[in-house]
Amino acid sequence: MSTRLGSLVESLGGKLIGDPELALSGIAPLDAAGAAHITFLSNSKLRQQAASSKAGAMILSAENHALLAASFGGSVVIAENPYAYFARAAQFFQSRDAEPVLPGIHATAVIDASAQIAASATIGPHVTIEAGAIIGEHCVVGAGCYIGRKAMLGAATVLHPNVSLLANCRIGLRGLVQSGAVIGGDGFGFANDGGKWIKIPQTGGVRIGDDVEIGANTTIDRGALEDTVIEDGVKLDNQIQIGHNCVIGAHTAMAGCVGVAGSAKIGKHCTFGGAAMILGHLTIADHVHISSGSLVSRSIAQAGQYTGFYPLAKNADWEKTAAIVRNLDRMRDKLREMEKTIQTLTTKQNSSS
Amino acid sequence: MSTRLGSLVESLGGKLIGDPELALSGIAPLDAAGAAHITFLSNSKLRQQAASSKAGAMILSAENHALLAASFGGSVVIAENPYAYFARAAQFFQSRDAEPVLPGIHATAVIDASAQIAASATIGPHVTIEAGAIIGEHCVVGAGCYIGRKAMLGAATVLHPNVSLLANCRIGLRGLVQSGAVIGGDGFGFANDGGKWIKIPQTGGVRIGDDVEIGANTTIDRGALEDTVIEDGVKLDNQIQIGHNCVIGAHTAMAGCVGVAGSAKIGKHCTFGGAAMILGHLTIADHVHISSGSLVSRSIAQAGQYTGFYPLAKNADWEKTAAIVRNLDRMRDKLREMEKTIQTLTTKQNSSS
Amino acid sequence: MSTRLGSLVESLGGKLIGDPELALSGIAPLDAAGAAHITFLSNSKLRQQAASSKAGAMILSAENHALLAASFGGSVVIAENPYAYFARAAQFFQSRDAEPVLPGIHATAVIDASAQIAASATIGPHVTIEAGAIIGEHCVVGAGCYIGRKAMLGAATVLHPNVSLLANCRIGLRGLVQSGAVIGGDGFGFANDGGKWIKIPQTGGVRIGDDVEIGANTTIDRGALEDTVIEDGVKLDNQIQIGHNCVIGAHTAMAGCVGVAGSAKIGKHCTFGGAAMILGHLTIADHVHISSGSLVSRSIAQAGQYTGFYPLAKNADWEKTAAIVRNLDRMRDKLREMEKTIQTLTTKQNSSS
Repeated sequence: MSTRLGSLVESLGGKLIGDPELALSGIAPLDAAGAAHITFLSNSKLRQQAASSKAGAMILSAENHALLAASFGGSVVIAENPYAYFARAAQFFQSRDAEPVLPGIHATAVIDASAQIAASATIGPHVTIEAGAIIGEHCVVGAGCYIGRKAMLGAATVLHPNVSLLANCRIGLRGLVQSGAVIGGDGFGFANDGGKWIKIPQTGGVRIGDDVEIGANTTIDRGALEDTVIEDGVKLDNQIQIGHNCVIGAHTAMAGCVGVAGSAKIGKHCTFGGAAMILGHLTIADHVHISSGSLVSRSIAQAGQYTGFYPLAKNADWEKTAAIVRNLDRMRDKLREMEKTIQTLTTKQNSSS
Repeated sequence: MSTRLGSLVESLGGKLIGDPELALSGIAPLDAAGAAHITFLSNSKLRQQAASSKAGAMILSAENHALLAASFGGSVVIAENPYAYFARAAQFFQSRDAEPVLPGIHATAVIDASAQIAASATIGPHVTIEAGAIIGEHCVVGAGCYIGRKAMLGAATVLHPNVSLLANCRIGLRGLVQSGAVIGGDGFGFANDGGKWIKIPQTGGVRIGDDVEIGANTTIDRGALEDTVIEDGVKLDNQIQIGHNCVIGAHTAMAGCVGVAGSAKIGKHCTFGGAAMILGHLTIADHVHISSGSLVSRSIAQAGQYTGFYPLAKNADWEKTAAIVRNLDRMRDKLREMEKTIQTLTTKQNSSS
Repeated sequence: MSTRLGSLVESLGGKLIGDPELALSGIAPLDAAGAAHITFLSNSKLRQQAASSKAGAMILSAENHALLAASFGGSVVIAENPYAYFARAAQFFQSRDAEPVLPGIHATAVIDASAQIAASATIGPHVTIEAGAIIGEHCVVGAGCYIGRKAMLGAATVLHPNVSLLANCRIGLRGLVQSGAVIGGDGFGFANDGGKWIKIPQTGGVRIGDDVEIGANTTIDRGALEDTVIEDGVKLDNQIQIGHNCVIGAHTAMAGCVGVAGSAKIGKHCTFGGAAMILGHLTIADHVHISSGSLVSRSIAQAGQYTGFYPLAKNADWEKTAAIVRNLDRMRDKLREMEKTIQTLTTKQNSSS
């Protein structure tokens, strides 16, 4: 299948310099692109590579276009943000090439009579949908998914196979939940009574905004009394754990294996590297960026990048430094003692000279 | 629906001071409670808030009751452990309000003829139950669950949807397993033979006591020869990994993302903060508490709180301290050298004075 | 059921010294083995225990056989690698004792007409297999599994119940995927456009070699354009996350909870301890061993053992050392200052003496 470059630019915007009739089969990286591909340059370090690219068309910033005009011979699309333009172009080709998903309910799905399923929705094999659930227009519920009582999917939300969305949990528009994710498990709440744990029922739900993506095997617990809240545009990678009553601010992104303990309030536009951990009941400001493998044990009021992981070393070197770290207080005491001795020495020397 | 305060106290105990006819709709926090709510004070820092609460009734310790008698006008339930009383009251209201679960086997469930299913059990849609499995009275097996050969569920145990309980794994009474949990995966055991890994069959099972809760997407591996054991009253949060042949002592609680490597023996009444990691073949005493994000690399024989994570800092500050940590042995050597120089200086000075 | 020792040795090799007619019920550890068991000694520290073992037969190295010949009275199998021999013997007994798995497709499975299912394959209840998928000879697809469009399972590959293998993902021969694993979730790729995240479609697949084991609830994301690759003989424990476009080299093993961020290239014959984390776009050489709980933030070009975790301490001690770590740069500055003072003192003393 091929697409006119002109059609692509009509759909996505940008300024076309070149041939609108160019037939594009798809998108490709700078070094692999041929005459029927569009490629992009978003990292200026690759400018040399771009200069010699054989791509039929290239997405460029105005600045890079000026620098490459003499060397790159193909058509050019000038965009303010070439990387975002690339993402949209890739979406364009993907939806062009995707197998159509036919609306309808598979014969093996078990759906309570009181559930409301939009006519344009697709419900896969072996799905269970409980009483009072609502599935919006153009939703796709993959094979083996479970939708609990009064759960809701906003229009155009897609659940990959084997997702569990439990009772009273709601997802907004255009969401994507990947396989094995569990939304609405019980929060981890117990009262200790003489050494035994008494369960505190978790009666809140999970409320997820629009344009949220939730990765494979990620878990988001329901709130104790109030809801756990995931705001619009949040992107969660795989194997993330969000505790009960957390609030994750809009457009925050978390990489794989992040954990957020209960009642943490995370700001908007934050990013968390893989396996970062956030303790409970903390407040993190907007635009905070936490490096991978870092544990956040206090609230953060100021935007910026924060880090806290032990540097890797050859094992023998680590053995040495770790032994010193364990006894840093002794080293500090020694230092203080030496400081005093030096002062005494200095005083004596001065008085004797 | 409303419940007499008197009925609540008859069920749960405690000393009622006030109106047994008070009609309660449910439980609410101190600041949100109204005339039809019961609330509780377990954290004495909130005593001012309690004094002005509009709750119809409040659960209090005897001490706080004495201090609040003049200011709080509602009914009072005096309990030894107000937080545990609150948990039980919340359970009381939850079971009052819950949708009834009807016993029976869904038509789509696939159940081997040799499996024994109690008449009062509920088996959901798309469930598979293999030969020789036993499901006790009042158990609930959610949609899409898998119960392997000769697996057992003790009475009143509940599996949320999409749980996998594999062959020869047993859960005691009143258990709760949340969605996506996998009990009885193969332990990770291989012999290395010339660079290739030869699988060691894992033929033990998993034996889980009474009153155990297992969180969403948590995994508990079967033992190599003997069983992996989870004792009574253990509470595991989401995304926890328990390796083969571990023993987790009674009433121990682990927060999300904890990992326990194979053959570790964990004591009773321990707690593990989120993402704590315990290496294999270690022994941890009773009443040990491990902070979040800490790696336990040696056995712990003494009760207490243990911690080991790198403190978070602004990234630029971390860069500085991490570089020093990498070279702490040089700093220590420098310190020793300086110490000698100081001794020499002191000796000389003393001899010259 | 019992097996002649002679038959075992005919199957597995090694040199038999003793009675080929010995009837073996199975395998057992040194201290538990009786006259109908075969046991093994792979750790020379247990030689005393081996000397007094009551086992009918023992797997030994030639060296240990020489040392034990006088004391151990049973039959002996001499093997170059007794631990690997033990693993193969355990496999031998396991396959002897296993319930037979009958080929065939369960009536509740939903299988697209264009999928190819080998006649000797076993497809469990509630399975979904999409168009164009190929299931090889002697494969076992457990209950509730999902196999996407054009996905492939090589011969003798086994999926435990509730696995999700998404479109265009391929597994080689003799693979094992445990419950809850998700292969082929979307990689985590977004372009930021004015604070919002634009999804980059993930159109690559996952390509898994022969003899690969994948643990429960482990996730392996599909590539962005190219495939994510897991080479032959790789062993992944539970709850591991492999990001898009990673390459995991042959015969590398990873313990539970490891995370590998996108586009990392991991060498062959590496091992990763539990909860180790590898950042994206790194290259790790062959034969690198990463300790548990260590974060790898730079490429590693040299084989060896690497470590990086904060040592555990009693909480009060950690509080002290962590406070010093936070201010290590001040300690270093103080040290430099003292060094200068000492030099001045020394110079003065030398000139005055």
